Parts: sequence; structure tokens; C-alpha cells
Amino acid sequence: MTPQELAEACAAAMWREDRTSPALGMSLEHVAPGEATLSMEIGPTMVNGHGICHGGFIFTLADSAFAFASNTYGERVVAAGASISFLRPARLGMRLRAVASERARAGRSGIYDIRVADEAGKLIAEFRGQSRGLGTRFFEEAS
Amino acid sequence: MTPQELAEACAAAMWREDRTSPALGMSLEHVAPGEATLSMEIGPTMVNGHGICHGGFIFTLADSAFAFASNTYGERVVAAGASISFLRPARLGMRLRAVASERARAGRSGIYDIRVADEAGKLIAEFRGQSRGLGTRFFEEAS
Amino acid sequence: MTPQELAEACAAAMWREDRTSPALGMSLEHVAPGEATLSMEIGPTMVNGHGICHGGFIFTLADSAFAFASNTYGERVVAAGASISFLRPARLGMRLRAVASERARAGRSGIYDIRVADEAGKLIAEFRGQSRGLGTRFFEEAS
Amino acid sequence: MTPQELAEACAAAMWREDRTSPALGMSLEHVAPGEATLSMEIGPTMVNGHGICHGGFIFTLADSAFAFASNTYGERVVAAGASISFLRPARLGMRLRAVASERARAGRSGIYDIRVADEAGKLIAEFRGQSRGLGTRFFEEAS
Repeated sequence: MTPQELAEACAAAMWREDRTSPALGMSLEHVAPGEATLSMEIGPTMVNGHGICHGGFIFTLADSAFAFASNTYGERVVAAGASISFLRPARLGMRLRAVASERARAGRSGIYDIRVADEAGKLIAEFRGQSRGLGTRFFEEAS
Repeated sequence: MTPQELAEACAAAMWREDRTSPALGMSLEHVAPGEATLSMEIGPTMVNGHGICHGGFIFTLADSAFAFASNTYGERVVAAGASISFLRPARLGMRLRAVASERARAGRSGIYDIRVADEAGKLIAEFRGQSRGLGTRFFEEAS
Repeated sequence: MTPQELAEACAAAMWREDRTSPALGMSLEHVAPGEATLSMEIGPTMVNGHGICHGGFIFTLADSAFAFASNTYGERVVAAGASISFLRPARLGMRLRAVASERARAGRSGIYDIRVADEAGKLIAEFRGQSRGLGTRFFEEAS
Repeated sequence: MTPQELAEACAAAMWREDRTSPALGMSLEHVAPGEATLSMEIGPTMVNGHGICHGGFIFTLADSAFAFASNTYGERVVAAGASISFLRPARLGMRLRAVASERARAGRSGIYDIRVADEAGKLIAEFRGQSRGLGTRFFEEAS
């Protein structure tokens, strides 16, 4: 398997296990080693009465992109922690796109940056996640 | 209005506007000036195929508790940012409780700590939120 | 050794190794299991031309308190990461006090909160640190 | 003034006011709109007895790079908060380099990423800072 094939195989395995991302209407648009892009439309149960999206759903979209990007090397990886800055409100009906890229990997730890923007490319939030490898793998090594 | 009555009136106004917290099955168990407790059961669309809760829903529960705790003084307050540390996995069927308390307020900024635990009190996540006042109020001042 | 004696012995061992905290004029005022208090006066090389303290020294004081509080159980512990919110400026000649308390421990990871205030108790900064145990100990276990 | 000339004039004004960065032996290697690079050698009062650099000095170097990068547009800007992940220990005698780049600006708020590496380019720490504009300027507007 090439690194790209491995990234795609991991993403396919992740997607099969994932009840949340499909239930929220997320689309996986891109995956590559250390990278992932997901998008999601803000639906009526994601907002308050003024049509402003709950920060939890913006975080959840970014966190899914973080999970897909960090799980592209064959090892199973989880989130140890994350921080998010909310820069502009997101509104009902907007389609948000979360682009995850790898900032650093050292030993079992990794840092991923996820930029969440609207369709016009206006920045909604910046997310940074710390990942931690579990030491287990998605697939058995063929010998 | 006493501070406690104001906190409760703000929470009632917040709850009426909020489509997310009820849709996710959250219960508002306690509110007081600078404090709020919410609980939520982890349902089948919140987990992956192994029954492990997506971090986004743990964040969303904590973020709702943060919103209720920070909006107890009459002024409308939003989240500027937040960070979360995931300490233990949460599983399908668990009831999580998020307890928000105020750590600091200075000018328009505030810091709130939210502890998310399971029913036995085992810590699942620690969340810290930075709030920012909007300068607008929930209720017209009666003169 | 009681837990308090162990905390004090660890702190004494840490202090002997530490070139930074004494060089910056820090005083260790209190140590107990999971707790430490340090204070430091803001000197002329810690400020800009307007007498405002560089955030790095506020961080350094808080980080030292974090190190002393997290290294009180006999195991050597390091900082994996930290975040800080700056709430008010600190000025030349102020004596700052950093009070560290333990928020959570789970496995090898810990979360510590450090509050930095001036002598009147006015809050200057809030620091949260994530610790990670190294698996080595300060003292040989006597058998 | 071109944007580059303005960035350099702001950096010169900042450097004149700054007692800390020169006292710690920092060199300002590069400045441009939204960017700055500083380097610093880890001296004997920055380490513990094992020659491991105190995280506070790594933070201070990154925080200085953050300050120079965010103060390049003529408006005075301060740090509202920052987070840092420590990825590898830094040792006595190492020369560290902090490269600051702008991640986002929206209204008065900005996000800057600072990567701290050793001379071989090995990553030591990742820092993310939130800036806040004060609404005052370095220079009087000529009319």
C-alpha cells in the first residue's frame, strides 16, 4: 500500500465505525496522509432561536476532521485535548468546511490544525488538537 | 430581582432560544450566578462502532453548561474560545453531568471551568471556556 | 514518610536542581500534595519601557508553581502543555503570587490550575497545565 | 510607508521599549507584516540541574516572537492568551529559533502560530497566541 492508499483505507475503516459524522450530515471530501477535509450544513437543531450555530457543532465538525487526519498512518490515534477560537458566528443553512492539516508529530503525540470556514472562505473558527497514538493498528500487518 | 432570580430568568430565556440542548436530550439541573449543571445521556448517534462517544458531544454538553453559567448576570455573553482535555472515554448509555463554575471575571472577559463526569463521579473531561460580553442585555431595565 | 513529608522532600530535591526559580528571585511559600505557592517580584529586566511585565515571566512563575505542585508524589513529572489567559497587566515592583492546585489526575496525566495574583489579590493571569509522568522517581524506594 | 517599512518601524519601536528580549540575549532575525523570527541561546540560569531548559523561557521566546509579529500593522496589540505544547526537551547551550506567522485576523482579534525549533530544525514546542488590539497606534498619522 502507498501512504495515500493507507490513508484512504484508514478513513474507510473510520467511516464504517462512525455513527456521528454521517448522522450530522458530514461529507468526507478529502483525505491524505496527515490531512482531511469535511463539510457539514448547519441544520435547524444546531442553532439557537436567533439562528446562531451552537459552538458544539462547529467543534464537532473540526474534531471529526482532526480524527480523520490523524488516523491516516495505520495506527489508531485518539484526541488527548483540543482548543478552539470562535472568530465569527455561523448561521442556519451555512455549509461549513473543516480543513485539517498536520502541524507536528513527535513520538506518540501529534498536533493538528483545523480551520473552519464558510463557503465564501470566511473564517469561522480555528481548532488545534493534540493527538495520542494508542499503539494499536487498523489492519493486521501482512507478512 | 435577586441575583438568583436574575440567573433563573436568564436561563429560562436561553432555554427558550436553544434548539440544540433539548434536541440532544440535555437537562438543566441547576443554575445560580456564575454556575450551571447540565446532564445528557450518550445516545446511539453520538458514538462510533465501538460504543465510544465522539468528543464533539462531550464538548457540546460542556459548552452548553458554560453558556448557561456565563449568562446569569443579565448581559448576553458568548464564547470566545475554549479548550478541553479528554481524560477517559465515555460510552453508549452513560449519563454525563457537566458542572460549570466561574473562575474569573475581569471587564468583559470571563473564565469558566466545566468538569464533565459520569454518574459515579469519574472524571471524563475538563473544559475551560473564555467568555466575552456583548454589551446587550436579556431584559429591558424597568425604570 | 507521610504524603506531606514526601511532597516536601520532592520540593527540596526540585529546588536543588533548579537554576531558574532562584535566579528570578522566586520564593517557595507553600507545598503540599498536589499544591504549591510561589511568589516573585517583577524586576527591571522583566518589563518593557512602559513598566509592563513581559507575559513570559508571568508564565514562568506559574509554570514553576505547576512544576512544584505536580512533583509532590515521588514520581518525576513534566509539563506536556499549558495555556494562559492574561487578565490584567502586571507592573514593575509588583510582587506576584502563583497558587497551584490539582484539578485532575488520571493515569499518567494530570491537570493543574495556577492562579497568578498581585499582593492585593487582584487576578493577573489564569494558567492551566497538563502534566505527564515520566515513570521515574525522585527517591529510591527503601525496602 | 510600505507595509514592510511599517512592520520594521513598529519592530524598532518595540525593541527600544523592551528590556526583556535583549536581557535574555534574543536576536530579532526577521520581521514582516504578520511575521517575526527571534532566536535565543539557552544559558545556565535557564536550566535545571540536569541541563533541561525551564519551559518558561521557551514560552518567553515564543511570546516575544508573537509580540513582534502581531505588532506590525501600526496598531498596538497585546496578548490575550496563549497555549503551548512542549514536544522535546531543550538543553543548555542550544540556540532556539521561534518563527511566528499569522493564522487569522478578525476585527480586533488575531491568532498567531509560533514554532520553536533547535538549530537542526527539530521541533521543541508549538505555541498559539490570541492577540487583541488596543485601539492605539505606534506612530501619529501624518496628514
